[in-house]
Amino acid sequence: MGRLLPTTPYRGTRDFLPSEMSVRQQVFHRLYDAIERFGFVRYDGPILESAEIYEAKSGQEIADQQLYSLTDRGDRRLALRPEMTPSVARMIAGNAGQLQFPVRWYSHVICHRYERPQRGRMREHLQINVDIFGSDSVNCEIEIFELIHDMMSAVGATRDMWVLRVGDRALLESILTDVVGVPADRLQATTSLIDRWAKSSPEQLVADAGALGIDEKQFGLLDDVLNSGSAVLERVSDEARERSMLARVLKSSAADLITFDPFIVRGLQYYTGTVFEVFDQHPKNNRSLFGGGRYEDLAGLFTTKRIPGIGFGMGDVTLHDFLEGHGLLPTPRAEVDVVVIPLSPDLATDSRIVAHDLRQSGTRVSTPLEPRKLSKELARSDASGARVAVIIAPDEWERGMVAVRDLTSHEQTEVSAADVVAEVNKLLRC
Amino acid sequence: MGRLLPTTPYRGTRDFLPSEMSVRQQVFHRLYDAIERFGFVRYDGPILESAEIYEAKSGQEIADQQLYSLTDRGDRRLALRPEMTPSVARMIAGNAGQLQFPVRWYSHVICHRYERPQRGRMREHLQINVDIFGSDSVNCEIEIFELIHDMMSAVGATRDMWVLRVGDRALLESILTDVVGVPADRLQATTSLIDRWAKSSPEQLVADAGALGIDEKQFGLLDDVLNSGSAVLERVSDEARERSMLARVLKSSAADLITFDPFIVRGLQYYTGTVFEVFDQHPKNNRSLFGGGRYEDLAGLFTTKRIPGIGFGMGDVTLHDFLEGHGLLPTPRAEVDVVVIPLSPDLATDSRIVAHDLRQSGTRVSTPLEPRKLSKELARSDASGARVAVIIAPDEWERGMVAVRDLTSHEQTEVSAADVVAEVNKLLRC
Repeated sequence: MGRLLPTTPYRGTRDFLPSEMSVRQQVFHRLYDAIERFGFVRYDGPILESAEIYEAKSGQEIADQQLYSLTDRGDRRLALRPEMTPSVARMIAGNAGQLQFPVRWYSHVICHRYERPQRGRMREHLQINVDIFGSDSVNCEIEIFELIHDMMSAVGATRDMWVLRVGDRALLESILTDVVGVPADRLQATTSLIDRWAKSSPEQLVADAGALGIDEKQFGLLDDVLNSGSAVLERVSDEARERSMLARVLKSSAADLITFDPFIVRGLQYYTGTVFEVFDQHPKNNRSLFGGGRYEDLAGLFTTKRIPGIGFGMGDVTLHDFLEGHGLLPTPRAEVDVVVIPLSPDLATDSRIVAHDLRQSGTRVSTPLEPRKLSKELARSDASGARVAVIIAPDEWERGMVAVRDLTSHEQTEVSAADVVAEVNKLLRC
Repeated sequence: MGRLLPTTPYRGTRDFLPSEMSVRQQVFHRLYDAIERFGFVRYDGPILESAEIYEAKSGQEIADQQLYSLTDRGDRRLALRPEMTPSVARMIAGNAGQLQFPVRWYSHVICHRYERPQRGRMREHLQINVDIFGSDSVNCEIEIFELIHDMMSAVGATRDMWVLRVGDRALLESILTDVVGVPADRLQATTSLIDRWAKSSPEQLVADAGALGIDEKQFGLLDDVLNSGSAVLERVSDEARERSMLARVLKSSAADLITFDPFIVRGLQYYTGTVFEVFDQHPKNNRSLFGGGRYEDLAGLFTTKRIPGIGFGMGDVTLHDFLEGHGLLPTPRAEVDVVVIPLSPDLATDSRIVAHDLRQSGTRVSTPLEPRKLSKELARSDASGARVAVIIAPDEWERGMVAVRDLTSHEQTEVSAADVVAEVNKLLRC
């Protein structure tokens, strides 16, 4: 026997033991359910994609430093998808001819990024992606915002625990151009500066702004408009306001779903209008949980057909931290509902038949694999979360009877073998 | 705008459009349900693993030719997992101290193998893995065979459509040694020969056997015992028969679950006793669907603790072909249950409220994103599989009424806005 190999998973990836998996599945099933109630349909795509779709679109940081790439034996350059958007753009473009736009699609996929693992960030993570493709209507924004509220409710979060902050890249450009007077060729750099606003010192901001040709007076104006809340909407042109989806949401009955925040710009290249992020309001964890935005044309890499859309991706690592921080993680589900215990090895076949009948009625049932004393078997059943034990003893079985034991109340009654399914299900429904 | 990129997925991988995904999910949810009814609990693990765990255990074919491997920026040699067994062995070994053996675990994971894509074989596929760890009892074999029957039933397959063929590597060794007289150092080569039996011509078999030192008389004996069905069990020693799990299953009431087949040996190195395969009985597709076996010691790479077990892996590609061949693929689920259609843009907010109330009652509801004529909207609703439309018209809404339309019968009734949730759910329950 050689050296033993380590049992820890590769750095930045996770094992999910059954109890952890049960928590994960309960959370995600609630989210799937909330999403499907809006008529979103689930799709899936490959983990391996051609590397060039990320090099072309995801931004240099991802392509240069974060991509897990490889070359297959046929010399194709591949990557483990770092995000789902390029894949879904490819799928939408490839099937545009037979799709009835707008479509509501969602997925739940594994993504890989080579990053330093830290709180809220892993190298392998799961991400729910939700998108509406093929509509320029503000109804899309409103629906996405409503959906986020329903998803947060579905996992037990109340409105005091989080906030949905929404910005608008197009509107921000109008503010920068019309109000502050930033020249067109400095718009993108100024947007980056705004993205860093909360993380930088005022001195640093003034200096960085100066380097962009924004003088102190302009900087004061910029600081003022960014911090004036929705009043800033009155200072841009009617046309800019009319074009902005965000401004229209703020005028609608859906305004109370969101908090206007011009500092939200998000890094990804493809967002063109509305951009949003959900923040944890926990005093010790005031972080961005997830976010998304509107893209003027998603699938330009793959098709000449213009396909606008809006969507977001929700990662499982930050979500788990959020739920844990607020005490919202569900308890793992019991492993089984019922155990069927034969008191003699001769009764193994009969036990299997009883267990089979119970399973047919939809119940989760286990039978012992190894012989054990009844007391040990009952202790084990308790630990597995089973609520009922069916005990098959030689003499009783001879008379056509079994014992049904309620593992919560410890009450035990003798019932006819013919009635065992009904009796057990009655106890389980209590 | 540059050259457009192709919209096809990487060779050997698949996109799942929503209708395909719905079929896949229905099939797999039935399987999960069948598995969980036996008390198996789901786990998950990473796609990226250290390459050495495959080089050490999965056999040379996988490690040398089929592994997708890469080196990360920290110079770690990684692989996309080609199968789940090494990962689960790692997890079981790492958590052996806190697990109460035996445990029943299952997973549903993505695996990658670099192979030539062909019918039943993809480079990226999904695999259900089911294992019992930590028991030497024949009850494990019986439970796994029962579970396979329940899983096949769960997806609609009847007993005429498939057969569960079971062999036993230890028993086969006894047959080869005691009955045919194969020397110990030729046992593995003879087992490989038996694995190729059905695919080779009789002349080839005789020649290959000769090369192994098996003369014509011995070859005749071998051919005879392999084809004598369970009668061969009478020709091995009592001790070999007593040690064989398969022989014990064949003597039990579970014998009718399986077909004894000494030709089943399976290629993977880690199987040591019982080995089994499920075959499609379709005359045009008489292929192996999936299989598994017993391992004397699964986790020897990771721990000195002996952990025996039995399990199997079921791939989604062959399963899909099987279901398709027998006409058992489910139809895709409807996208929504209900559509709520406002007849004027002013009613968008009210429609959202009605839709919200319906969602709260558990119904899947969509509202139009783009304005369309009612007739077009109803045609679209029909296509999405919706069964009920709630139509909100200005005059009726003024009077507190909405129209509820049964999209199957085309009957339409006017109901009070306060009753719409109850009315719609009544129609959906019909």
